[in-house]
Amino acid sequence: MQLIQATRDAVLKPLTMVVGIVERRNTLPILANVLIRKQGSQLEFLANDLEVQITTRAGFGVGDETLATTVAARKLLDILRALPESGDVRLSLDEAKLTVQAGRSRFALQTLDAADYPTVTQSEQWPASFSMPQKALKNLFNQVHFAMAQQDIRYYLNGLLLVLEPGRVRAVATDGHRLAHGGVAVEGQAATLDVIIPRKTIHEMQRLLSDDEQAAVQIDVTAGQIRFRFDDIEVVSKLVEGKFPDYRRVIPAGYSRHFDVARDVLQAALQRTAILTTDKLKGVRLQLGDNLLRLSSSNAEQEEAREELEVDYAQEPLDVAFNVSYLLDVLANIKTDTVRWSVQPDANASVLITLPNDEEFKYVVMPMRI
Amino acid sequence: MQLIQATRDAVLKPLTMVVGIVERRNTLPILANVLIRKQGSQLEFLANDLEVQITTRAGFGVGDETLATTVAARKLLDILRALPESGDVRLSLDEAKLTVQAGRSRFALQTLDAADYPTVTQSEQWPASFSMPQKALKNLFNQVHFAMAQQDIRYYLNGLLLVLEPGRVRAVATDGHRLAHGGVAVEGQAATLDVIIPRKTIHEMQRLLSDDEQAAVQIDVTAGQIRFRFDDIEVVSKLVEGKFPDYRRVIPAGYSRHFDVARDVLQAALQRTAILTTDKLKGVRLQLGDNLLRLSSSNAEQEEAREELEVDYAQEPLDVAFNVSYLLDVLANIKTDTVRWSVQPDANASVLITLPNDEEFKYVVMPMRI
Repeated sequence: MQLIQATRDAVLKPLTMVVGIVERRNTLPILANVLIRKQGSQLEFLANDLEVQITTRAGFGVGDETLATTVAARKLLDILRALPESGDVRLSLDEAKLTVQAGRSRFALQTLDAADYPTVTQSEQWPASFSMPQKALKNLFNQVHFAMAQQDIRYYLNGLLLVLEPGRVRAVATDGHRLAHGGVAVEGQAATLDVIIPRKTIHEMQRLLSDDEQAAVQIDVTAGQIRFRFDDIEVVSKLVEGKFPDYRRVIPAGYSRHFDVARDVLQAALQRTAILTTDKLKGVRLQLGDNLLRLSSSNAEQEEAREELEVDYAQEPLDVAFNVSYLLDVLANIKTDTVRWSVQPDANASVLITLPNDEEFKYVVMPMRI
Repeated sequence: MQLIQATRDAVLKPLTMVVGIVERRNTLPILANVLIRKQGSQLEFLANDLEVQITTRAGFGVGDETLATTVAARKLLDILRALPESGDVRLSLDEAKLTVQAGRSRFALQTLDAADYPTVTQSEQWPASFSMPQKALKNLFNQVHFAMAQQDIRYYLNGLLLVLEPGRVRAVATDGHRLAHGGVAVEGQAATLDVIIPRKTIHEMQRLLSDDEQAAVQIDVTAGQIRFRFDDIEVVSKLVEGKFPDYRRVIPAGYSRHFDVARDVLQAALQRTAILTTDKLKGVRLQLGDNLLRLSSSNAEQEEAREELEVDYAQEPLDVAFNVSYLLDVLANIKTDTVRWSVQPDANASVLITLPNDEEFKYVVMPMRI
């Protein structure tokens, strides 16, 4: 029974969007599959990894039947990608096999029963529900995602804190050594709620959200679940339970000493200095004073790097060290020409990095002892 | 004492050429280094991994002194790559440290004594010595390199057989399952000699040889050593001892049945068929007859792929199976639009792939049982 007839690229698009979360190795074999549901011409492609579920919709179903099946997601994707662009692709379901046909190519894929595919039960009530531009949400995630912890036993750090305040949405990420904070005004956002979104969901959203100024995303949040709906895509994710650190206490206030520096110049100097650090610590020393920022590093072989940058800073000299990776991370993920560097005359105080055109963005790095 | 002053890219060029063979982990620490030798303005950069040695020459030495030192090859390369393109780079040697300076960046690298660096003792006599276009040698290596074995206990298969005959140079590679043979006429080549060049040397030569029609390479061969000299580069490699299989016996003669097929069409069909093979065997079945080439595969999940190509073949039908990787390898490494496929009406006979415009090229694949 025929399911789909469309160009290769038309079928590839919704499939590619959901396949990102399908893991190559699964304890539950059906999770390697994509769920395909058809109701007349309406099609749904759905993938779920038990933490996040992505559904995409398309209108190229053939015939009036209502059908559902599941098939190996990566194999179907690989076959479609390897087919020529021109000409239609046909998918049909016969005797528990999904057949892909195009020109004189024919593939029969094994299916598993759609009824066995685990799908998320969605909440019926959403205490927070608002819409914002996709580009603004993508920018917010891009500004802070790199500071999320990775496989930390403090599991709540392996995610991003989304802070809803009336008229505003904030994103915060920290791994305990540095913290990134971003925020954006959102009209019509009336709730007050803090939730932690899993790391993988954030990465998928960065991949799926559009840069189109006009496109919107509808966001619905409840205690254990968050839902994003945009274009033909729906992403439903579990939330991480746990108490996120109080970012307000971490972000320093009242730093009066600062200087501005060109992002690319600072980034290149730090990249060079990083070459002669030890693999584990990656410590770079920053000496500030007399309108000069001196960066230096050394490693176990007693090799040394030194860089000098002219900066507009004539206040108390400062001598402090950082893990260079934390500084390079932020410089690679923000897009402004200039960054503002604020300090206290204390080698144990955090550095605060802000941006000239975005007063909500704040990046805090703890110093290290070398 | 200053060694070098030049633009970043001028220093990067000879360094990049030799660094390719420096392994990241070495039992002998000095092998992670590059040897830099200076005689007046003449500079040599040399790397050796005890199997192959590459030397490049450049003319940007500073001062009259004769000096030599060794320094971590990758670190020097990483620093130079991270420096801005504009402005000169200066390298100096002081108190056993090599200093790299550019603008307001300064790096001090540890050195090891040049006298401890192992360099190859070159043969004084070369029974074979001839010159040929770099492009022709590169093409010869490109045509056969993929058929070399990898870490085979038959160590002589982990290399390329270079066959010198008066007026001709041949290259042969085989891993026991398939064999690739190429050849080119070379004026002034008078020797008769067979040598086996190590796998790594071949890969470096493919990287270093130019596509310039006019550029020549001087090749000198003796029993245990081969030397290539071209542009400002010298490559000296050990040869592999052992008896290479007799390629003349492997290449079938007298195949009278053949058809021509478009390379990209066959390649795409095989790539799709490969998706539904089992990971280890990668067996694809070829059924030939009635002007049709049918490709098919199946895997442990009983999934199936089938492709049909029209071909000009109306002789005895043939049903034979191959490891699809061996077929894809050759199609990815040759450049013609069409390949000729020659067969015998025997499922145990090898297939022979040749090219319309190069009668020396021959690729033989043994069939498999599926």
